[in-house]
Amino acid sequence: MQAESTPRRLVDLTPDECWALAASRPVGRLAWSGPSGPTVIPVNFVLDGRTVRIRTTAYSAAARECDDSPVAFQIDTFDSDDHTGWSVLIRGHAHLEYGEQALQDAPEPWISGPRTLLLRVEVAEITGRRLD
Amino acid sequence: MQAESTPRRLVDLTPDECWALAASRPVGRLAWSGPSGPTVIPVNFVLDGRTVRIRTTAYSAAARECDDSPVAFQIDTFDSDDHTGWSVLIRGHAHLEYGEQALQDAPEPWISGPRTLLLRVEVAEITGRRLD
Repeated sequence: MQAESTPRRLVDLTPDECWALAASRPVGRLAWSGPSGPTVIPVNFVLDGRTVRIRTTAYSAAARECDDSPVAFQIDTFDSDDHTGWSVLIRGHAHLEYGEQALQDAPEPWISGPRTLLLRVEVAEITGRRLD
Repeated sequence: MQAESTPRRLVDLTPDECWALAASRPVGRLAWSGPSGPTVIPVNFVLDGRTVRIRTTAYSAAARECDDSPVAFQIDTFDSDDHTGWSVLIRGHAHLEYGEQALQDAPEPWISGPRTLLLRVEVAEITGRRLD
């Protein structure tokens, strides 16, 4: 561990590194431009090929504002003492899906109550950086 | 600790709880709607009254795309085993400031190289929720 005051270098990650790191975390952040401005909501997710799968409800802000829209999905981990970490930024398009079939590949919900919608983000671009 | 499969309740936080939790973390995520779509970048920050202070460079995406714009700033912590955690979402307006005076109250940079700009987010709204 370096001293807290040692500044780190910012290093670009390859797409393969980005996919592997993104898959290592259970929670990411869905971001979109809504009627109240930029919005960021943490969600648990699974990656399936080049698709991010999120479970939600018809009442959620994401379901009401994201369908068929450009979104970002961000995943990161940082060590506050060591000032190391990484961040991955996905850009893509969100689509809502209904029905039993859609939910078969959805993540288990962390929140109680019925969550019967799948929000699928088709990934157009993945980039990332780490503090080295 | 409950079993992983026990779904949690989502509980709204008061503004005071949101401010205290936001101040407890060194890293948050700045989000805005840029020319490439929604964008989310993690940054270390300090809170000063109702203002989020971030140090950056003139070459950063944030500096090039955020000045005088609506932004979101999101802070969270989650326990992957316990499925507990919280998230705070700030909405506000970003302003870039130059010069020694502006940097006096900026956070120490985690990244090497000169970072001579202050990005200030004036908070218009703060909301948050925890998984209980």
